[in-house]
Amino acid sequence: MVMAYFLENFWGEKNSGFDVLYHNMKHGQISTKELSEFIRERSTIEEAYSRSMTKLAKSASNYTQLGTFGPVWDVFKSSTEKLAGCHLELVKKLQDLIKEVQKYGEDQLKAHKKTKEEVSGTLEAVQNIQSVTQSLHKAKEFYNSKCVEQEKLKKEGAPQKDIEKAAIKTKKATESYKVCVEKYAAVKLDFEQKMAETAQKFQDIEEAHLVRVKEIIEYFSHSVSEVHIQIGQVHEDFINNMANITVDSLLQKFAESKGTGRERPGPIEFEECNTAVMVEGVKQ
Amino acid sequence: MVMAYFLENFWGEKNSGFDVLYHNMKHGQISTKELSEFIRERSTIEEAYSRSMTKLAKSASNYTQLGTFGPVWDVFKSSTEKLAGCHLELVKKLQDLIKEVQKYGEDQLKAHKKTKEEVSGTLEAVQNIQSVTQSLHKAKEFYNSKCVEQEKLKKEGAPQKDIEKAAIKTKKATESYKVCVEKYAAVKLDFEQKMAETAQKFQDIEEAHLVRVKEIIEYFSHSVSEVHIQIGQVHEDFINNMANITVDSLLQKFAESKGTGRERPGPIEFEECNTAVMVEGVKQ
Repeated sequence: MVMAYFLENFWGEKNSGFDVLYHNMKHGQISTKELSEFIRERSTIEEAYSRSMTKLAKSASNYTQLGTFGPVWDVFKSSTEKLAGCHLELVKKLQDLIKEVQKYGEDQLKAHKKTKEEVSGTLEAVQNIQSVTQSLHKAKEFYNSKCVEQEKLKKEGAPQKDIEKAAIKTKKATESYKVCVEKYAAVKLDFEQKMAETAQKFQDIEEAHLVRVKEIIEYFSHSVSEVHIQIGQVHEDFINNMANITVDSLLQKFAESKGTGRERPGPIEFEECNTAVMVEGVKQ
Repeated sequence: MVMAYFLENFWGEKNSGFDVLYHNMKHGQISTKELSEFIRERSTIEEAYSRSMTKLAKSASNYTQLGTFGPVWDVFKSSTEKLAGCHLELVKKLQDLIKEVQKYGEDQLKAHKKTKEEVSGTLEAVQNIQSVTQSLHKAKEFYNSKCVEQEKLKKEGAPQKDIEKAAIKTKKATESYKVCVEKYAAVKLDFEQKMAETAQKFQDIEEAHLVRVKEIIEYFSHSVSEVHIQIGQVHEDFINNMANITVDSLLQKFAESKGTGRERPGPIEFEECNTAVMVEGVKQ
């Protein structure tokens, strides 16, 4: 159970909490966009790495097959190709994730539009309490100034007529001031109710957003870790394959494929000419 | 104990085993050069990857710090920087290895030059047996043809003078043939001794080369595996750090840093003007 952080912390004398929370909600869209950008950039990096590895595998397959070392390049080639494949696998996973993030971004935008409408009454209540608070201050000052004026006239012993005129002004100012006090009580009540409700709504939206974004990050981590394990397997296979290609086996393989023969030069004896056979041979 | 593959498999009637083994030794230089190229290309790939990751970390640090999600980018940034660091670590290890391979290449070149001199006697023995074998064949043919000629003259009842002339020719041919047979026996013995020794020398050189090259590949695998483990640790830390940044903590952090106040708007009562204080206030 998450505490009501927003409900408790976005009041204050300027009543600007609504504005802060509303903008925070909108920043959620930027976060989604940036998260998508981050994943896309990472995907691009993995793709470039994969392409380079494929190129490297081709280099390995173009290296000389002559000599005892020749067969070893096959191990390099196959391992490097597999590495390229692993990183391409990550690219695919990230591309899928980007699509999900974009879909979420669209849903988020719609939800925010809906919320904007839903909280329009709260925005009005904020504007009301702000403007009524201001009017109340003005009315109080005006009332005070009228009281002071009336008092001055009295002290200076001004004509009764002037004092009465001032008294009428004071009475009017008193009434305006009282109206403002009543109005303030009403908008304050309205603001408090609406703001409490909206602060909780904004927190719910934010909570849902963070939960979703954390899911996306978990999928991201999971993909990266999964491919990391595959890469580890490729390294292990490479080490094993290299261990299996012993020096002895390379020498043997070379001797078998490039050997010129096992027969040493034989003895050659003097062979007396058998003219009968020779002549026969010439005639044929 | 490696079997004497080279000693056994590079004989054959053309006596071309020396040539094959000598060229195989020279191919060892190509292998060393290509191995160095392969490692350099891999190093270049890792360097490019590392640079891209550093750039990505910078992107993450430029993303908005506004909103509840802001603090999460620090985790992305730090993790991505660490990944860049791991791959740069691999680049350093590979650069060191390339230097070793190059040093080995120089030593190999020197050793081959020395070997070329050492086996020059064998090359001569090969050329000798090849040319003597050829001369022997020619001498045998010549001897046979002279025998046939003499026999023909006899059968045709040619003049005794002609038959005697032919007999002298036959005798000369017989002697040449016999000299060749003796020469062959000598060069055959020399060739066999020298070739046996040299074949074993070539195998020793090849064996030492393959052992060295396999050491280089092991160092390569070891570097790659070591950095792979470090990368795995970075991924694990990322997952843990993300798990530690709970939704609750993000909401709390945001409320604390961006909160506008915990005080709800207070009640405002009508305040009667205290003219004495007000006038005093105006005078001051």
